Amino acid sequence: MNILEERIMREGRCLDGGVLKVDGFVNHQMDPALMKACADEFARRFKDTGVNKILTIEASGIAPAIMTGYAMGLPVVFAKKKKPSTMTDMLTASVYSFTKRQTYDICVSGEYLGRGDRLLFIDDFLANGNAAKGIISLAEQAGAELAGMGFLIEKAFQHGGDYLRGEGLRVESLAVIESLDNGEIRIKGSVTSR
Amino acid sequence: MNILEERIMREGRCLDGGVLKVDGFVNHQMDPALMKACADEFARRFKDTGVNKILTIEASGIAPAIMTGYAMGLPVVFAKKKKPSTMTDMLTASVYSFTKRQTYDICVSGEYLGRGDRLLFIDDFLANGNAAKGIISLAEQAGAELAGMGFLIEKAFQHGGDYLRGEGLRVESLAVIESLDNGEIRIKGSVTSR
Repeated sequence: MNILEERIMREGRCLDGGVLKVDGFVNHQMDPALMKACADEFARRFKDTGVNKILTIEASGIAPAIMTGYAMGLPVVFAKKKKPSTMTDMLTASVYSFTKRQTYDICVSGEYLGRGDRLLFIDDFLANGNAAKGIISLAEQAGAELAGMGFLIEKAFQHGGDYLRGEGLRVESLAVIESLDNGEIRIKGSVTSR
Repeated sequence: MNILEERIMREGRCLDGGVLKVDGFVNHQMDPALMKACADEFARRFKDTGVNKILTIEASGIAPAIMTGYAMGLPVVFAKKKKPSTMTDMLTASVYSFTKRQTYDICVSGEYLGRGDRLLFIDDFLANGNAAKGIISLAEQAGAELAGMGFLIEKAFQHGGDYLRGEGLRVESLAVIESLDNGEIRIKGSVTSR
């Protein structure tokens, strides 16, 4: 087990509706040393992909993305969920959030995403893959290439990873959750009870 | 001039309404090496304050905050602008955004903010100080102490810094903008034309 998997087993909690609560170290309170270790692992896995930019979505993607950008020496762009007053030349896509049961828009300025960019998308969670689909749309609109996608945690039972890999995308997840049934976190190869 | 001030002078732009556009390196596309340098400077300035936790607000505060947390070896909590489904025991405060001309709520779980915490608030911008006032309210509700506030960029002409320092808070800003009048960025001690 890697350091993230161990932490999930120790501190993660199962909530109703297939929700994994990791807000003590990933997406509300964050452990910078853990993020740094995960970023170094992303940098290792994607080092030969020729990416020139990291892309993520606010808010909880930003911490792993900025750390990965630092590890790889690359700029990081975060897609916003509201159009800022200072943004011109905007690209937008719609994303349906399964957890929140609503659709929201993500947007990126065409100033910072364009033809010739080779992107690495980094996010905290891969579940249904809807956010990733929004990113694919933004990259297509910009004429940029998506060279890889890295997730801290993949919920395999929600099948976003199947879809993305089926599309030929390179997807790397540092912890893969097989199920959260009966309040039990099952990581690929390990089981714990909560 | 420090590295952030130099970057603002070179790439920052003045927009109408007292807005400084720095979205090429601070709050949309981000430069991780610049963030790391700023974080190291925050760590140096606040090293004797005995803080045990970094607090910030999504989304653009997260990058400087996680880097500062890494530099200081401290956990980082980001206040959210929407109540997540996984949050219990919630503290909330209202913030009026001058730029967006609307009020929004920020919230933090009481699980991660409480009596005995000594907080360092880190954010990208200090303007009117309204977000900082929301943070002061959250800290008070939690019974936590605010030991310091660090900002990448302070817009001195919007006077949030005057208010916070008047309240006895320790405020450190890495770049202080004196004015953006006539399309000219005036940093304390320097002038450039755009």
